[in-house]
Amino acid sequence: MASESGKLWGGRFVGTVDPIMEKFNSSITYDRHLWEVDVQGSKAYSRGLEKAGLLTKAEVDQIHHGLDKVAEEWAQDTFKLNPNDEDIHTANERRLKELIGETAGKLHTGRSRNDQVVTDLRLWMRQNCWTLSALLWGLIRTMVDRAEAERDILFPGYTHLQRAQPIRWSHWILSHAVALTRDSERLLEVQKRINVLPLGSGAIAGNPLGVDRELLRAELNFGAITLNSMDATSERDFVAEFLFWASLCMTHLSRMAEDLILYSTKEFSFVQLSDAYSTGSSLMPQKKNPDSLELIRSKAGRVFGRCAGLLMTLKGLPSTYNKDLQEDKEAVFEVSDTMSAVLQVATGIISTLQIHPENMARALSPDMLATDLAYYLVRKGMPFRQAHEASGKAVFMAETKGVALNQLSLQELQTISPLFSGDVSHVWDYGHSVEQYAALGGTARSSVDWQISQGKLA
Amino acid sequence: MASESGKLWGGRFVGTVDPIMEKFNSSITYDRHLWEVDVQGSKAYSRGLEKAGLLTKAEVDQIHHGLDKVAEEWAQDTFKLNPNDEDIHTANERRLKELIGETAGKLHTGRSRNDQVVTDLRLWMRQNCWTLSALLWGLIRTMVDRAEAERDILFPGYTHLQRAQPIRWSHWILSHAVALTRDSERLLEVQKRINVLPLGSGAIAGNPLGVDRELLRAELNFGAITLNSMDATSERDFVAEFLFWASLCMTHLSRMAEDLILYSTKEFSFVQLSDAYSTGSSLMPQKKNPDSLELIRSKAGRVFGRCAGLLMTLKGLPSTYNKDLQEDKEAVFEVSDTMSAVLQVATGIISTLQIHPENMARALSPDMLATDLAYYLVRKGMPFRQAHEASGKAVFMAETKGVALNQLSLQELQTISPLFSGDVSHVWDYGHSVEQYAALGGTARSSVDWQISQGKLA
Amino acid sequence: MASESGKLWGGRFVGTVDPIMEKFNSSITYDRHLWEVDVQGSKAYSRGLEKAGLLTKAEVDQIHHGLDKVAEEWAQDTFKLNPNDEDIHTANERRLKELIGETAGKLHTGRSRNDQVVTDLRLWMRQNCWTLSALLWGLIRTMVDRAEAERDILFPGYTHLQRAQPIRWSHWILSHAVALTRDSERLLEVQKRINVLPLGSGAIAGNPLGVDRELLRAELNFGAITLNSMDATSERDFVAEFLFWASLCMTHLSRMAEDLILYSTKEFSFVQLSDAYSTGSSLMPQKKNPDSLELIRSKAGRVFGRCAGLLMTLKGLPSTYNKDLQEDKEAVFEVSDTMSAVLQVATGIISTLQIHPENMARALSPDMLATDLAYYLVRKGMPFRQAHEASGKAVFMAETKGVALNQLSLQELQTISPLFSGDVSHVWDYGHSVEQYAALGGTARSSVDWQISQGKLA
Amino acid sequence: MASESGKLWGGRFVGTVDPIMEKFNSSITYDRHLWEVDVQGSKAYSRGLEKAGLLTKAEVDQIHHGLDKVAEEWAQDTFKLNPNDEDIHTANERRLKELIGETAGKLHTGRSRNDQVVTDLRLWMRQNCWTLSALLWGLIRTMVDRAEAERDILFPGYTHLQRAQPIRWSHWILSHAVALTRDSERLLEVQKRINVLPLGSGAIAGNPLGVDRELLRAELNFGAITLNSMDATSERDFVAEFLFWASLCMTHLSRMAEDLILYSTKEFSFVQLSDAYSTGSSLMPQKKNPDSLELIRSKAGRVFGRCAGLLMTLKGLPSTYNKDLQEDKEAVFEVSDTMSAVLQVATGIISTLQIHPENMARALSPDMLATDLAYYLVRKGMPFRQAHEASGKAVFMAETKGVALNQLSLQELQTISPLFSGDVSHVWDYGHSVEQYAALGGTARSSVDWQISQGKLA
Repeated sequence: MASESGKLWGGRFVGTVDPIMEKFNSSITYDRHLWEVDVQGSKAYSRGLEKAGLLTKAEVDQIHHGLDKVAEEWAQDTFKLNPNDEDIHTANERRLKELIGETAGKLHTGRSRNDQVVTDLRLWMRQNCWTLSALLWGLIRTMVDRAEAERDILFPGYTHLQRAQPIRWSHWILSHAVALTRDSERLLEVQKRINVLPLGSGAIAGNPLGVDRELLRAELNFGAITLNSMDATSERDFVAEFLFWASLCMTHLSRMAEDLILYSTKEFSFVQLSDAYSTGSSLMPQKKNPDSLELIRSKAGRVFGRCAGLLMTLKGLPSTYNKDLQEDKEAVFEVSDTMSAVLQVATGIISTLQIHPENMARALSPDMLATDLAYYLVRKGMPFRQAHEASGKAVFMAETKGVALNQLSLQELQTISPLFSGDVSHVWDYGHSVEQYAALGGTARSSVDWQISQGKLA
Repeated sequence: MASESGKLWGGRFVGTVDPIMEKFNSSITYDRHLWEVDVQGSKAYSRGLEKAGLLTKAEVDQIHHGLDKVAEEWAQDTFKLNPNDEDIHTANERRLKELIGETAGKLHTGRSRNDQVVTDLRLWMRQNCWTLSALLWGLIRTMVDRAEAERDILFPGYTHLQRAQPIRWSHWILSHAVALTRDSERLLEVQKRINVLPLGSGAIAGNPLGVDRELLRAELNFGAITLNSMDATSERDFVAEFLFWASLCMTHLSRMAEDLILYSTKEFSFVQLSDAYSTGSSLMPQKKNPDSLELIRSKAGRVFGRCAGLLMTLKGLPSTYNKDLQEDKEAVFEVSDTMSAVLQVATGIISTLQIHPENMARALSPDMLATDLAYYLVRKGMPFRQAHEASGKAVFMAETKGVALNQLSLQELQTISPLFSGDVSHVWDYGHSVEQYAALGGTARSSVDWQISQGKLA
Repeated sequence: MASESGKLWGGRFVGTVDPIMEKFNSSITYDRHLWEVDVQGSKAYSRGLEKAGLLTKAEVDQIHHGLDKVAEEWAQDTFKLNPNDEDIHTANERRLKELIGETAGKLHTGRSRNDQVVTDLRLWMRQNCWTLSALLWGLIRTMVDRAEAERDILFPGYTHLQRAQPIRWSHWILSHAVALTRDSERLLEVQKRINVLPLGSGAIAGNPLGVDRELLRAELNFGAITLNSMDATSERDFVAEFLFWASLCMTHLSRMAEDLILYSTKEFSFVQLSDAYSTGSSLMPQKKNPDSLELIRSKAGRVFGRCAGLLMTLKGLPSTYNKDLQEDKEAVFEVSDTMSAVLQVATGIISTLQIHPENMARALSPDMLATDLAYYLVRKGMPFRQAHEASGKAVFMAETKGVALNQLSLQELQTISPLFSGDVSHVWDYGHSVEQYAALGGTARSSVDWQISQGKLA
Repeated sequence: MASESGKLWGGRFVGTVDPIMEKFNSSITYDRHLWEVDVQGSKAYSRGLEKAGLLTKAEVDQIHHGLDKVAEEWAQDTFKLNPNDEDIHTANERRLKELIGETAGKLHTGRSRNDQVVTDLRLWMRQNCWTLSALLWGLIRTMVDRAEAERDILFPGYTHLQRAQPIRWSHWILSHAVALTRDSERLLEVQKRINVLPLGSGAIAGNPLGVDRELLRAELNFGAITLNSMDATSERDFVAEFLFWASLCMTHLSRMAEDLILYSTKEFSFVQLSDAYSTGSSLMPQKKNPDSLELIRSKAGRVFGRCAGLLMTLKGLPSTYNKDLQEDKEAVFEVSDTMSAVLQVATGIISTLQIHPENMARALSPDMLATDLAYYLVRKGMPFRQAHEASGKAVFMAETKGVALNQLSLQELQTISPLFSGDVSHVWDYGHSVEQYAALGGTARSSVDWQISQGKLA
């Protein structure tokens, strides 16, 4: 059989240490992001040990002093990693021992890396979610402000990318802002579940030394404590939820980006990206490309990929901690960075976007009022289905004659229905059209104002 | 160029109608599930039209009467579909017209399939989520009851699938139950966002006829109304959230299934599935396979696949309704069915599972108390890191001598540390070991009781 | 502890049989698709048993006769399922026994459902792939024919959805056709790996009765036999590959659909879908929506969801057959149906699409020749980077003056570079522009003809 | 409206440059991996320009000389990036200009970043795939060698994780090796499609300067040239295929890892990981955890996440190059690194794994021969279905009597069937059992030898 120290069957050489395995196993290259929360968690835990009678007040002070020094080194970028520092937790504890001696060896009493790492991650994510939440609100507020400023501009609303009905430009902005407010609501819910303390769960069975978890909770300002130590050390629901939150938020932004990419084509010409968010071509001198929007659209894929990856990793795992869970952190860090950049770039894009109201107006055409023509008949008493058919006949008649829908004469319209009379001319007014949609949520001025007020409250 | 009626470039024949396209476009094969909520929504909408002065009381009564008849036909399975009924909405309206005549044509006034279909889907999902919620609670309750009944049984807790520390069997059950209570909490949040009324949003611009959406909301008992008509008709966040909810719940159940599959191997022999949840082999007479658990584990993939599929479909879509959104319903129906079956089967499995406490007890071994040995030294004043090392030496000494860890004599232990004394014998008691873990969330009896009480309250 | 026949802990009632578990476990609702290949496989296997001396010639004849009868019943839709028929294999064997008596009981000798089901699935998929391959080639051929017929039509080529350079309409068609030829190539490779015989692998250890697998291979016309019985019964690479093949093919079709949706907007107006592939609006009389294209675009999500689901199901499974693998078939059937419909609808769309060459021509603008202007200078000896910059200056000058790029006078151009002379006027000819791109793969007539010839050969 | 230089609506400040956008847009942090292939591609392209008469021999020499210097700087890590170097292509061209002056500006003539970047990526991946292929073969060869050395060791084969039939340990090894040979086959197919030259496609329309793409192909040693310039610059099939290849390969390795994790539990105790591939616990002194295997299992999720992410990014993109495609490279680099580490670690694990043949032998039990008992009766002429039932009765009888299956007396067996006679004792020999499975692919020695010979040929 194979001896411990070597290969027997022709594989690459393996001594007692396989450097590729060491690197494969190590997480220090990315979990160093956790240095600050790791120190924070250790300080709180030492308070717990003090209350449990396992550390004296003097030892706690010594440990805190040492941890402050560790933190200082990280903050000043003078912390020196050893080759054996496989993760941030061992690195910090190793350094603490160098700084304060054997007392450092008491800090891990009753604690396991299993509860330590997940506590650190929750602390980091809690902070990060506040940052993302603020960026998200910055974007929403920018959109609401813009919607308020430009609410008198009309342009075509599309369904199936076909011109459908005239709407307010602000109504379009708000349609995306409203989606983002749901993301904001969801993020708060995720944060609530992040904000639960696992420390004091040990490796699997719990804490055997009478550590007061309520004290730990209060020290670290968590909202609650986890209920079961096996679950606490191995559940990553809050990570999966965060990644899904980001994925759904990105599909919203991808849809807004898609609209703006279309609206900034030559063919639509409704909007123009500021130069700060466009780039040129290495080959074609006349090009100005909406790279920022395309990148936002594309990141929906990347972010979702991380969510998919984590769920696949979790699927079918046995209970409690397995090393598979180490995959959680890179996903969180990458997605957090991406969301931060995307939200800021999106805010910049919306802030500086130029719009072309004259092109928007020009794109409104009388056939978009065909539904209004049907409503005209409905208001005269015709059942909607008949009115819809009558309006369809008018559309066909206009197409056949090669004229715009509003160019049909009253006589012509009356061949379709005797209910048409002179007041049909009021139908052909886009401003009048949008004002009909006064039910809450519609595109009338009053409803748009209501939406804006909701957006400001939220 | 191609004429409307035919092909020019060698493709398969296409006349004015392509039967494959008709089938491709049609949703009636699955959206017939919505017949009841479609009737419900139409009744409410007719009330809205009445208040808006577009229907008389008599017309509303006529419509309601007709819709009741439609519902009756569906309920009694006598509803006859026409080949032209492409979806449930057109089928029901077509039938209504046959039953009550032209008044039926007034029902769709100001309504679009865009707001109708999403209202129906929300109504259906609202009801369905209550069902799933009840099934989920049934499972949790079964687990909590079982945990309560069997809390004196000990067995090995594993991390990395290696024996780690003795724990209570109930602690294991509760670790999975606790995960499911988070699913329950999340489902309530999803339900809250499902329970928002889009009706009155029209196709895109809103409702132009003064329909009182607050009245519609009250009629259909929704919690709130949607804020923006463009968003309301095209956002499917609530579907994506539901699919993700199911995906995460399934990863929990897949992990529980994985544990039970392992525990029911010959090698572990901790549990035995009831025959109702096992199957035999077509070839091997001695086999009894945990098919039910394997199916649960596998469904995590299927359910997540639907979630992934929907998000990919949503990514990069332009604003408002696009036919792409038709993909939502099959995903919802399939995942709902799967969740319903999985939750019921899981409840049956847990209800009828036989456990083998004697095998569980036999699997406990003294080396699993190595951490306790370290804690023994800690309690005598040794820093944990040194105690961990000392205990490791004892483990190594026992292995080297070929004896169990608790077979080392006091003298032998004292060669490792002088802190060892006669009371070390108390360490070798598994019942004593688990009782140490009395901090909240641990595996001590008191903590397990606390978990059970939490589970019963929830 | 729980008795076999009942619950102890409050779950729903469970007797010896749980009907939900029966349904959960059963696959007959969908694996009946396999009836024909199951009969085929059984006939071949009986030949193997004959050669191994386990069946007489008379028994084989009897079995074949019985199986023919079974097949006939399926074909004529007179096969009656029993409630106990959990899958197609047990149903067919049960029926065979009713038809021919005890000899039927010899058919399964040395065979397991594990090797039987995967043989059936491979036979079904082999046939189905040929069908899909033919449909795919029908689509490609339609596209190539159309490209050939319309190769003199020019329109704008876009990058980043911004007008880039004039190209041939046929060049656009061929860009999508070329992607589909790669799908065709990949499908052949998948078929090659589908076409490998697992029969004779038993449940796990192989076949113990001297069955000649080479004979089985020849009987069933497989290209090769599987190498290892444990792998053969549990690997589903060929399913995963098929689902990925479909996913990638669908992303191609989703991109073509996206283009055509854009080109059929009012704003682009390059193409118009035939009525057979469009639908109207329930609310807006003037609408004609490209539903067929949107459905194609959306199916990319659904199909990929199935691929994602299967891979997640496979991840981390223990060796050999686990019931989790039962998820394979529904994925295959659904994706096969979807691909079949999508390919046919896409062929119909391309066959009947109307194009508007005049709108295409109108969308060409002189600024799209800015790169050509740079090449003009390159041909006069200016390094490209300088030429690119000079052309950029011309674009800017034209924009500033509010004229088209080709309206700049020679004098104006000469302020940018003295290399401009009278022959610059040749640049402003779109036909001339595209003819420059004569390197293989470019948009010149000769290169497009070369592409067409490649497409016809393939 | 918004001025170019600033915000109007409350967003964060944006001047002419948004540093977050710059960073968001930039790819230099990761595409610097391409420095070498970028130089390679540029050298070849300059040869093409020479043949086209756009560069003199002297200019080509100058450019090559400069590019060699650029490469040298990268190789020696002395290349200095400018803040404006947004990607490797602009960085290299910028540096070339500094080194050789204006002639550098001729290099990009007729080339676009669109064809340049995809050429570079293909060159990089071509090289990388050879590396991965060699590592994969190293692993397969290690497995085959080990299978050869240990083919006389028997242990239980499992289906549904229940003991099924005795098999050779080598048969298990080979079941995983065979799956990997399919991965190897697939990788060759992906490589074939990677090895196609897009250079000479320009930005979209092709190359207008008569560059001989066949010469470029030969210079860069590609197998073929792309057919259509629009497709060539924007298709990423080869990336998606590579990511899927890796995903499928990882599911294989995740399944092997799962088996080995189980086999290294205390309960199975079949194998023991070398210390080089295990780690200890920070809390529990006795633990030795199979971290290496868990990491391999988990990476299946991560790698697939990248595949899922890219496909979602591609879905619904318009034709030709869009910035979204920039997502391709990080996915490729990350997955390549992961695969390289995983394959090496897996090879190390297999090379150094200790096995415990005595535990394997001990886990074989007579009930695993129940199928053989049925075959015994089959050989005596009983139809298999009856024999299966008879054997099942024997299993039940043994269980009821509380004895092992092989402890039933002949008389007892004869109460089940008179066909039992003295020679039934031969059934109870595990070595005899496995030798029955002599059909190709089975677990008999001859068949295992055949598999090994196939594995060595491949």
